[in-house]
Amino acid sequence: MKATAIANANIALIKYWGKRDEKLILPNNGSVSLTLDKLNTITTVEFDKKYDKDILILDDQELKEGEELEKAIKHLDLIREISGIKELAKVVSKNNFPTAAGLASSASGFTALSLAGTKAAGKDLDQKELSILARRSGSGSAARSCVGGFVEWLKGGKEDGTDSYAVQIAPPNHWPELRMLTTIVSTVKKKVSSTAGMDLTVKTSPMYKAWLAAAAEDLEKMRKGVLNKDFKSVGKTAESNCLNMHATMITTHPSLIYWMPTTLEIIHSVLSWRDQGLECYFTIDAGPQVKIICLEKDVPELEKKLKNIKGVKKIIICKPGGGPRLTDNHLF
Amino acid sequence: MKATAIANANIALIKYWGKRDEKLILPNNGSVSLTLDKLNTITTVEFDKKYDKDILILDDQELKEGEELEKAIKHLDLIREISGIKELAKVVSKNNFPTAAGLASSASGFTALSLAGTKAAGKDLDQKELSILARRSGSGSAARSCVGGFVEWLKGGKEDGTDSYAVQIAPPNHWPELRMLTTIVSTVKKKVSSTAGMDLTVKTSPMYKAWLAAAAEDLEKMRKGVLNKDFKSVGKTAESNCLNMHATMITTHPSLIYWMPTTLEIIHSVLSWRDQGLECYFTIDAGPQVKIICLEKDVPELEKKLKNIKGVKKIIICKPGGGPRLTDNHLF
Repeated sequence: MKATAIANANIALIKYWGKRDEKLILPNNGSVSLTLDKLNTITTVEFDKKYDKDILILDDQELKEGEELEKAIKHLDLIREISGIKELAKVVSKNNFPTAAGLASSASGFTALSLAGTKAAGKDLDQKELSILARRSGSGSAARSCVGGFVEWLKGGKEDGTDSYAVQIAPPNHWPELRMLTTIVSTVKKKVSSTAGMDLTVKTSPMYKAWLAAAAEDLEKMRKGVLNKDFKSVGKTAESNCLNMHATMITTHPSLIYWMPTTLEIIHSVLSWRDQGLECYFTIDAGPQVKIICLEKDVPELEKKLKNIKGVKKIIICKPGGGPRLTDNHLF
Repeated sequence: MKATAIANANIALIKYWGKRDEKLILPNNGSVSLTLDKLNTITTVEFDKKYDKDILILDDQELKEGEELEKAIKHLDLIREISGIKELAKVVSKNNFPTAAGLASSASGFTALSLAGTKAAGKDLDQKELSILARRSGSGSAARSCVGGFVEWLKGGKEDGTDSYAVQIAPPNHWPELRMLTTIVSTVKKKVSSTAGMDLTVKTSPMYKAWLAAAAEDLEKMRKGVLNKDFKSVGKTAESNCLNMHATMITTHPSLIYWMPTTLEIIHSVLSWRDQGLECYFTIDAGPQVKIICLEKDVPELEKKLKNIKGVKKIIICKPGGGPRLTDNHLF
């Protein structure tokens, strides 16, 4: 009744922002992501009748209350439901990167919880089943971390959500030269979570419909760009889609401004480096960190330039990474 | 054949972004502004047959080429056309604030040029005629600087533009406690002018239609808010309209990101001060400077807080100001 899983984070190249079903976590638009090899979560789950409540220890801290704990318990309930077990659980989870600062910690976290949890409950899910389960965690983008490489989370059309899950566009070794430089500019927890933020946007942004229409076009371009390894198209489309999402966030009431001063400094720097011939593009999730998409050959130059920006606390150089896997290295 | 005029800058509370007629400078949406008492341009125009070209001296520098010079010469041509004169002109103009950094220098500049130019050419225009002429300068918001206090630039509907000009919603003394703190965070000239920027947005932003629809609603709210001196409504509507405009700019191809790191720092500060009970709102034009809307009673506290933000180079405290006027203090 104990299992441990490791899952990688993913960074969306075409963003997910807004649900059509809040209970089943069905998205208003399809999204595309890259699973990263360097940002991961390892999670051990044990179901046992000795526990009289669900215990969650995240990065060595026991969660006593709050949205994260509630989401985790709800997800454990879902795992118990599909597995037909009743035991409560102890969960120990570690991220190798800062939590809840726009680095997709919840995606890798809920994927690892889904895989370790179902295994500990005696169930073996296939990739599609795992992705549907992870999607329902309330951190929808966890659906994508269930698959390695270049991934599309299908929007789906069915009311029951059985056709909304992640599929692989191409495996990690399809494009081994692609790099994503993840900068960390702030480790402060964001004020408004992605979950709360996207619900506000759907309800209040005058730009939301335009965002959806543009995202649908961007998704087609991105899928083609990835398959053709067309770096310019992938970079431009990712950047433009990211800007559309942030524009839509900014027009939410109250306004969601996830950018920090250093975020903006990196944005302007990337635009100016590109003007000077260094081909790189940025993407930013619901947080202040900037991820830079580039090719392997330009990593040393970019790393040097990024280190000269005062607010950049850390740079993590990622390649396309694989899907989640089980391990025997239990955390307790 | 020589005349001098002083005109105040204005800051839009409901922004103008995008034209329906590029030749007559007819806007896609109506806008509302506050004419400010502290930011002004003084301009002397002399038409004389001794000049063998139009000479423009702006802030002690003769302009030899570029968009600004071309726009000024075109405007002098228009003044000559409506006045029936042929002489070329010498124009000397001074701003008491930095040019082309999003502080509406072109609005006060072209209003002063319109008034001094027509007077020097022997014409006396009424306010409506002056506003239509200033509008056609290519810096449309100059239409608004022709009127004092709280001003609406009517969108108009006619093809010839005769119904698109500025009218007063309320005079400066309607709301003498209102203040606008203009911060200067950068005096670098912006890369993309408002004129070029708005044309790009109209052509390429997927959010532009949504911007127009929201701006029309905002305008109605703003007019009512000003007439009722409803500070909260005026502040919230101005801030939201500004964010919608910047969102639309950001989604332009190529992206127009006028914010600088300090811009964003002030935005976050204003939002947090307001959370703490200090009622203030921001608005930002096509540039990095942030203007803070507040009431007289809160100026000392806000000024103190703003001075603690490292990137703030200057703070100018403005009240509602009057329309343009002639003076005998010629600059040459």
